Amino acid sequence: MLRDVGSRDKEFIECVKFIRHKLIEIAGVSQDDFCCVPVQGSGTFAVDAAFQTALPREGAKVLVIENGSYGKRMVKICESAGIEVHTQSFQEDCAVEPEVIEDALGGPVVYDLVAIVHSETSSGVINPVTEVGKIVKENNPDTIFLVDAISSFGAVRLDIEEANIDIFVSSANKCLQGVPGFAFVIARNSVIAKCKGNSRSLALDLYDQVTQLDKTNQFRFTPPTHSMLAFKRALEEYEVEGRVEGRSKRYAANRDILREGMTRLGFQELLDPKVAGYIITSYKYPKDPKFNFQEFYNRLNEKDFVIYPGKVLDADCFRIGTIGDLHPQDMVDLLVAVEEVCRDMGIELPVQY
Amino acid sequence: MLRDVGSRDKEFIECVKFIRHKLIEIAGVSQDDFCCVPVQGSGTFAVDAAFQTALPREGAKVLVIENGSYGKRMVKICESAGIEVHTQSFQEDCAVEPEVIEDALGGPVVYDLVAIVHSETSSGVINPVTEVGKIVKENNPDTIFLVDAISSFGAVRLDIEEANIDIFVSSANKCLQGVPGFAFVIARNSVIAKCKGNSRSLALDLYDQVTQLDKTNQFRFTPPTHSMLAFKRALEEYEVEGRVEGRSKRYAANRDILREGMTRLGFQELLDPKVAGYIITSYKYPKDPKFNFQEFYNRLNEKDFVIYPGKVLDADCFRIGTIGDLHPQDMVDLLVAVEEVCRDMGIELPVQY
Repeated sequence: MLRDVGSRDKEFIECVKFIRHKLIEIAGVSQDDFCCVPVQGSGTFAVDAAFQTALPREGAKVLVIENGSYGKRMVKICESAGIEVHTQSFQEDCAVEPEVIEDALGGPVVYDLVAIVHSETSSGVINPVTEVGKIVKENNPDTIFLVDAISSFGAVRLDIEEANIDIFVSSANKCLQGVPGFAFVIARNSVIAKCKGNSRSLALDLYDQVTQLDKTNQFRFTPPTHSMLAFKRALEEYEVEGRVEGRSKRYAANRDILREGMTRLGFQELLDPKVAGYIITSYKYPKDPKFNFQEFYNRLNEKDFVIYPGKVLDADCFRIGTIGDLHPQDMVDLLVAVEEVCRDMGIELPVQY
Repeated sequence: MLRDVGSRDKEFIECVKFIRHKLIEIAGVSQDDFCCVPVQGSGTFAVDAAFQTALPREGAKVLVIENGSYGKRMVKICESAGIEVHTQSFQEDCAVEPEVIEDALGGPVVYDLVAIVHSETSSGVINPVTEVGKIVKENNPDTIFLVDAISSFGAVRLDIEEANIDIFVSSANKCLQGVPGFAFVIARNSVIAKCKGNSRSLALDLYDQVTQLDKTNQFRFTPPTHSMLAFKRALEEYEVEGRVEGRSKRYAANRDILREGMTRLGFQELLDPKVAGYIITSYKYPKDPKFNFQEFYNRLNEKDFVIYPGKVLDADCFRIGTIGDLHPQDMVDLLVAVEEVCRDMGIELPVQY
């Protein structure tokens, strides 16, 4: 992080090459059939770039399957890009239902692309991407299947080939534990090859980006060099921890400790455990009038625990993440802090609903 | 750089607020009349965002004044965005000529926006932005004047109000000496206020970005937190060095030492000193058949000096930058290294043309 390496420098070019190769390896797909395109900016920049690049400027039709704010964001991305977008919505506290998708795709509209979020971070729900992918391709093998796996990649098992995914988006700073600065798209070469000239934005043009990267492993425009050097190290740590097995085990252990402790304190989860992942967990606000989220947040913050506000439209809840360089002891410490904060705020324990 | 601060955390929000306020102060414009919009990604992302946001989806006409690859890149940005773009080109080794612009604007086409690069890094030439801005506004006060000041802001004096600039783009990692990860746009509020719904990209929509930042100083999408914390420190160092006076003095001193030493070694500059800035200097390849750029570059690299290949279309040259945390002694050391490399390569000194 502290070294200033030139973006056209040999060492940095090797770093980019390593990252691109390793991400395809971690994704479990063929180096011959897929390409990895890092994109400057956050995960949303890469999702935007994926839509910009995948679809022609005129006449394309998209179906976004959504059950939360990251799905809704894909709808906005299409609207901004002038892409005709249809939406199949589900309740934010439920998983997407494959049978409903089957019906939606059985209608008269032929979709050029179907998109879904794997781990919908606004609630914590994990969507049945593999089942949906099968339905998409059975309906029409030419439909591009795009998955936003930003908050799940690397810690929630997903077989890209089995799920028929063509375009897969994730980010440096979620389960792979890099720092923010860039995101990446893993895409089928056969799909990207058809995308020349599609993008309404030069900066977000993945066809141009990957063409240059394939030639030289140099970016068209200055990359966040420090974030990428840090990410190389993060990928090495990922290997050491045992890849998706190791990481999913630790995150699930974090979540189990959180779940047990929060239950003991009386807190109720928003989601049915059957659809909840171990990335982030939503808790409903307790009924106690002394519970005030902002104060709860600030007091935890003072103890060095940063939680998230809720992001589900019609439910009062807050969220606790269990990914990153967090370990079971951190969760134990968090639970002690939550208990102390509740007592300091005069909230009766266990909390009531 | 090494601290992991949450992007919605109080400390980070204060950091964003500080950066946005300080950049407007450094730009020398009114906090009431201008806004500062940081954009994730490189400078090109911010230039792309500026065009995307400033111009309506249909019917807009742009004139790009160009004399190098960064000007040509603005043309490509417009083409990708589907914006009608006209080009007024000048030779890459010459500055833009205001009289020619006067003629170009006197024609039948009414331009919604005129764009120019201040310091054209592909050659090192500084363009007469103030004179051009006056001509643009005399011709039509409603034409938006956009300036790419990515490689000059903070070290080359430019009065934004005097130059009639409406949209001004720069980056964290040039003369302000931050690390790569984000860029920024300084724009007239009265111009941005008219831009709702223009952008063909959600991620690059500056209207949306500034609306959210003005409300909360939180980004819509994850910012490069480490780069921004580092940039806050870089701005503090900028103050200590004496802002544009201090920095321009040091960079000009770097360039003077470089010029004198390279001249002594026989190297010829591409540009007439009258149009050359002190940001980056282009040197013509010497005639000696033993001179080979890649070898010259690699050998300097081994001595820890990173130079740039040339970027002017029809001239064989290389470039040496004199900005960043470089001091006169670094330039003296570089000249020793250049001399050693030439001797090691068997190139006769002084080099011949």
